[in-house]
Amino acid sequence: MATKRVMVLTGGGDCPGLNAVIRGIVKRASLEKDWEVIGCIESFNGVLREPTEIVVLDEKSVAGLLVEGGTILGTTNKGGPFAWPIKNHDGTWTTVDRSDEMIRKLQYMGVDAVINIGGDGSQRISLALSQKGLNIVGVPKTIDNDLSLTDYTFGFQTAVQICTEAIDKLVTTAASHNRVFILEVMGRDAGWIALHSAIAGGADVCLIPEIPYDIEKVKEKIEARYTNRRGFCNIVIAEGAKPIGGEVVGKASTEVGYQHIRLGGVAEKLAADLKNIGVEHDIRYTLLGHLQRGGIPTAYDRILATEFGVRAFEFVKEGRFGEMVAYRHPEIIGVPLAEAVSKPNLVTPDNRLLHTAKGLGIVFGD
Amino acid sequence: MATKRVMVLTGGGDCPGLNAVIRGIVKRASLEKDWEVIGCIESFNGVLREPTEIVVLDEKSVAGLLVEGGTILGTTNKGGPFAWPIKNHDGTWTTVDRSDEMIRKLQYMGVDAVINIGGDGSQRISLALSQKGLNIVGVPKTIDNDLSLTDYTFGFQTAVQICTEAIDKLVTTAASHNRVFILEVMGRDAGWIALHSAIAGGADVCLIPEIPYDIEKVKEKIEARYTNRRGFCNIVIAEGAKPIGGEVVGKASTEVGYQHIRLGGVAEKLAADLKNIGVEHDIRYTLLGHLQRGGIPTAYDRILATEFGVRAFEFVKEGRFGEMVAYRHPEIIGVPLAEAVSKPNLVTPDNRLLHTAKGLGIVFGD
Amino acid sequence: MATKRVMVLTGGGDCPGLNAVIRGIVKRASLEKDWEVIGCIESFNGVLREPTEIVVLDEKSVAGLLVEGGTILGTTNKGGPFAWPIKNHDGTWTTVDRSDEMIRKLQYMGVDAVINIGGDGSQRISLALSQKGLNIVGVPKTIDNDLSLTDYTFGFQTAVQICTEAIDKLVTTAASHNRVFILEVMGRDAGWIALHSAIAGGADVCLIPEIPYDIEKVKEKIEARYTNRRGFCNIVIAEGAKPIGGEVVGKASTEVGYQHIRLGGVAEKLAADLKNIGVEHDIRYTLLGHLQRGGIPTAYDRILATEFGVRAFEFVKEGRFGEMVAYRHPEIIGVPLAEAVSKPNLVTPDNRLLHTAKGLGIVFGD
Amino acid sequence: MATKRVMVLTGGGDCPGLNAVIRGIVKRASLEKDWEVIGCIESFNGVLREPTEIVVLDEKSVAGLLVEGGTILGTTNKGGPFAWPIKNHDGTWTTVDRSDEMIRKLQYMGVDAVINIGGDGSQRISLALSQKGLNIVGVPKTIDNDLSLTDYTFGFQTAVQICTEAIDKLVTTAASHNRVFILEVMGRDAGWIALHSAIAGGADVCLIPEIPYDIEKVKEKIEARYTNRRGFCNIVIAEGAKPIGGEVVGKASTEVGYQHIRLGGVAEKLAADLKNIGVEHDIRYTLLGHLQRGGIPTAYDRILATEFGVRAFEFVKEGRFGEMVAYRHPEIIGVPLAEAVSKPNLVTPDNRLLHTAKGLGIVFGD
Repeated sequence: MATKRVMVLTGGGDCPGLNAVIRGIVKRASLEKDWEVIGCIESFNGVLREPTEIVVLDEKSVAGLLVEGGTILGTTNKGGPFAWPIKNHDGTWTTVDRSDEMIRKLQYMGVDAVINIGGDGSQRISLALSQKGLNIVGVPKTIDNDLSLTDYTFGFQTAVQICTEAIDKLVTTAASHNRVFILEVMGRDAGWIALHSAIAGGADVCLIPEIPYDIEKVKEKIEARYTNRRGFCNIVIAEGAKPIGGEVVGKASTEVGYQHIRLGGVAEKLAADLKNIGVEHDIRYTLLGHLQRGGIPTAYDRILATEFGVRAFEFVKEGRFGEMVAYRHPEIIGVPLAEAVSKPNLVTPDNRLLHTAKGLGIVFGD
Repeated sequence: MATKRVMVLTGGGDCPGLNAVIRGIVKRASLEKDWEVIGCIESFNGVLREPTEIVVLDEKSVAGLLVEGGTILGTTNKGGPFAWPIKNHDGTWTTVDRSDEMIRKLQYMGVDAVINIGGDGSQRISLALSQKGLNIVGVPKTIDNDLSLTDYTFGFQTAVQICTEAIDKLVTTAASHNRVFILEVMGRDAGWIALHSAIAGGADVCLIPEIPYDIEKVKEKIEARYTNRRGFCNIVIAEGAKPIGGEVVGKASTEVGYQHIRLGGVAEKLAADLKNIGVEHDIRYTLLGHLQRGGIPTAYDRILATEFGVRAFEFVKEGRFGEMVAYRHPEIIGVPLAEAVSKPNLVTPDNRLLHTAKGLGIVFGD
Repeated sequence: MATKRVMVLTGGGDCPGLNAVIRGIVKRASLEKDWEVIGCIESFNGVLREPTEIVVLDEKSVAGLLVEGGTILGTTNKGGPFAWPIKNHDGTWTTVDRSDEMIRKLQYMGVDAVINIGGDGSQRISLALSQKGLNIVGVPKTIDNDLSLTDYTFGFQTAVQICTEAIDKLVTTAASHNRVFILEVMGRDAGWIALHSAIAGGADVCLIPEIPYDIEKVKEKIEARYTNRRGFCNIVIAEGAKPIGGEVVGKASTEVGYQHIRLGGVAEKLAADLKNIGVEHDIRYTLLGHLQRGGIPTAYDRILATEFGVRAFEFVKEGRFGEMVAYRHPEIIGVPLAEAVSKPNLVTPDNRLLHTAKGLGIVFGD
Repeated sequence: MATKRVMVLTGGGDCPGLNAVIRGIVKRASLEKDWEVIGCIESFNGVLREPTEIVVLDEKSVAGLLVEGGTILGTTNKGGPFAWPIKNHDGTWTTVDRSDEMIRKLQYMGVDAVINIGGDGSQRISLALSQKGLNIVGVPKTIDNDLSLTDYTFGFQTAVQICTEAIDKLVTTAASHNRVFILEVMGRDAGWIALHSAIAGGADVCLIPEIPYDIEKVKEKIEARYTNRRGFCNIVIAEGAKPIGGEVVGKASTEVGYQHIRLGGVAEKLAADLKNIGVEHDIRYTLLGHLQRGGIPTAYDRILATEFGVRAFEFVKEGRFGEMVAYRHPEIIGVPLAEAVSKPNLVTPDNRLLHTAKGLGIVFGD
């Protein structure tokens, strides 16, 4: 009978591969006689709520999970141990710190360790709980691949694959109708998805947050692809891209602990701007939105997620708490949570992919 | 050496399978010693323009076409023999009838027959040209499947498959986040794509143009799928759906002979309306837009398109002009062009699919 | 509380869409207040075995089933009420008729009706049980589409799609290496999968059981596609195809009530035969085997399976026992079980698809 | 007008991404005013043959190539400059060294540099030609990922994805029928494809060439997955896997410079061996064969291939001859051809993936 218990939870936006991480943890733990895995529903909220929402995770409960998007544990951006929402008498809301209470409750529940699968915000919570003495291991999650301490995260390749297939779909329509097509993809701060999918899909222009774009150069490239009004041009734009001297549109509005994703900002604006400066071709835009984060993970992401899960359990077993698993080619390593949350991973001027994109003539600027 | 010449052209919006029709015509003609196939670029405009834009289509030029979306001949909604745009001296535009001139030019070019692949608008032109004596055969094209004289048209199953896979992608995100997801799909007048993909994707609500929706019943269904704020709900809405007593939003604006597709009308409005009547769950919407008409045709559509192509050539060979090929299960038949353009194919109250949808509890109303 | 009970079961080889039928039955039944659905494990064996293996099927148990291949109820070709295997004292096996006992047991269990999803063999059992007074409704299942009383069955389009995508994969290798590729697909008696996928995949030769092939004509076609040893040729062959005057190879061996699928017979033999008559090009063959019956059903099959499920429950509700649901375009109808099991659906000389295949030059013979 | 000329060619077995490399070279070269790209048909044979088979490669000729498998230049394992086959008077064959003649001919044709895309055998030829003074740059190609000087090669992830999807297809059939399924995948010497796809597909057993397997342990694992004859087990086996003390079956036979791929060796043998030692469950096996190397490259492979192409042209421009481009994360680097051909990349005991596989309990042995 199991004498030790590890609790798993997922936080933040969903991402293909979350279930594969959970499965990896459970599969690895099942090789040990004395460990039990339980899952907490909707990030830490399953522990904070009454009645408590906890599920036992055994091999049967993770069967078939490799191909499933989303997370069987549910996820949320709201609540959490440090900012639990409380309604005041006057109907307004405030938040309270319930972290100490939660740590005591986990002790009471016999939870020896926690594996927290989540993004930057989740790992800040991991760090704070770790500093309070909780045995916690982090697993990084960011579909945008914007964490600097891991080469790649699961979900990213799946998003790139989905965006690439979208370009494949648009290109024949573009060619048949002599159109300019603008595809808006995820990437508020980091242009990785745009850069990868533009190269993979053979787009003609790629606009990313890191390099403000010169709209006249975009026009120039478009016109160079038309002869006597015949031709087409595919543009991939990250949602956080902006013109030189311009602002990001469609910026995320924020409620208490909650992030809205606004659709349609940049592609629509770019289409209008191109019309305004005299591009006469038929211009259409398409937003992938949530389609980018759903569906069956690619083999690549299933493997990476499984590795993260297996290794996260091993960290727990080895007592390596306060660390986050990370992929630093060719190894899966552990990085201190304190470092993990510090700096983002953006496209830098010397990046290899950027070099390739410039070599294809689809990224302009220095 | 070929002594007879058939000219092929594609008109209207692009549709998966157009190239397969062209390939079918060429493959079938290649079994005959005395026939040559040529293609006219951008509907009839390739003949009307100077210099003329015509390509010879042989087996080599159609190699690999089964998997390609779009049309190698290009397509357009602008121009045509009966409404050729002419710029007046004052800068305004007018249109002229160049049909007689075009028929003479085709004779001069040695064109014995024409196969016109296109939608309702294109077949009206086919009919008018046929009445003027041109040897013409029609091939129906409508991704919405809204032509009543053929059971199915190519491209439709591909669009349904794409929409279904989109629902597959959204459902895991919806479940993980306890969200309401609204997916807007094609279907301005006919709800076929919405109805098929809602059943195939397992959506919880399906809203189509033929049955104005009661938003209170939509709310009721949503709430029935939540217990204690936990649950999710997937809604598929056709772009032409409207509330009872309401208007279609996002209506197509029209320029001279040209149709704009406006994105985002109905899904966005439905989300706002649901919020307004008190639905408190997180609601998101997604528009598939042009992604629905791109990409590799499904096997079903490749077969149907090939059959249309093979049969269209055989109609030409047999002198069955003034007819449109059509699929009336289990046969490919010919219908007079005069009848072909008359009435649309809408979802009727006694429809089998509608019966099924009601049996699943996803379509309400009588 | 439910007062009536319908039992569902699946028999024979698995087929994409089985789970969608089960889901359709449950979804439809959930609209009725007084019906409960239960599932019997591994065809009728779950009732015949001790302890009995029965599961309650509610909306929760069918969530997510549309995208899942196989059957959650399990399936088998062994056993059954009329031929239950019994080990004799001397170690040999015999079978006994347990049908009367089973019908009494179902009464005892409060089962008001049975829906039997299965192929020809399963429906013979349905008929025999119906004749003994059991309230039973059949749902046809045959991935080969070889049942004459229904236009199509679920699973077939998925198999065609998989075979078509296999041809798509092989064609680029064939072209790059100047090879002849032979793809063996399912179809022991009926060539439907071969015929459909050969047209959809653009194969150059299609060999089906209904038309014994002249190997010299195959060679002729191959050579016609090569110029100066440069070229390629894709051949699709049904597992039941045979040369003129020849025998079917790889014939199914049979144990007691059990069918083995032997791989590799016809493609391997055709490759050898072509070598023997002097084809000097590099020849390779590929067998799809079980890959053809697995995976996510296409939208088409999910819809058809859902319709069958919804209608089967309605037949139960309406007391239409002794019937099998069937798709006779444009309706879902009921046919008497007695007729359902009588005659197979083969490719006939006047078939429309065959006409198209001949028009493409990929089927030879009269 | 172009004053410098680079010749591109592809050798060995085809691989998804070959066309993307060619496109990358052409796209990058098109940014330079003074370079022209030409392609040589079927490895070096296009130059060696009379008449010479050379094509000009411009942006138009590489349009749409990202999604195409195979190679537009054709490929072969036969012939080549160092072993050109000559028929003797007595009908036997011999080979002659035509390398000096070929180098002279390339000079005469105005070829300033050559980019040779191919595997180990091709790069040995590159090295030998380089040592004779030819300006040559290598691009590595191995679908098995068995080259030690590059972290990954294009085509590998596509093969892994295809194998993973095959497991996805088989698992539902296995579960529905309580079967053992054996999937044979590529990997004669290196188990990378098996190891990756077994983890990604959630297989239960993974057998690779580097670790001879103990068949009793395989049996043990199978039996552990069954309870009362209910259960299933998926086994992935590389074609080069062998039992402890046993031999590789289905070994490649070799003609002059030519390698046959024998199908079906190891999976069939494993099935028989398992039966022999008393496994009574229903066992089936499936061979993916050529399906693994066809089809549309994944986004990952399209990017890597494009990077190789862009960089290979840049090496030519920079005069970095005698080098092979390689991916050494996070950079694309150049390695001397002399080193490139030296040692294979096998799964070593300390490998990260192997560690994960053992943590999942699917690889046994030390």
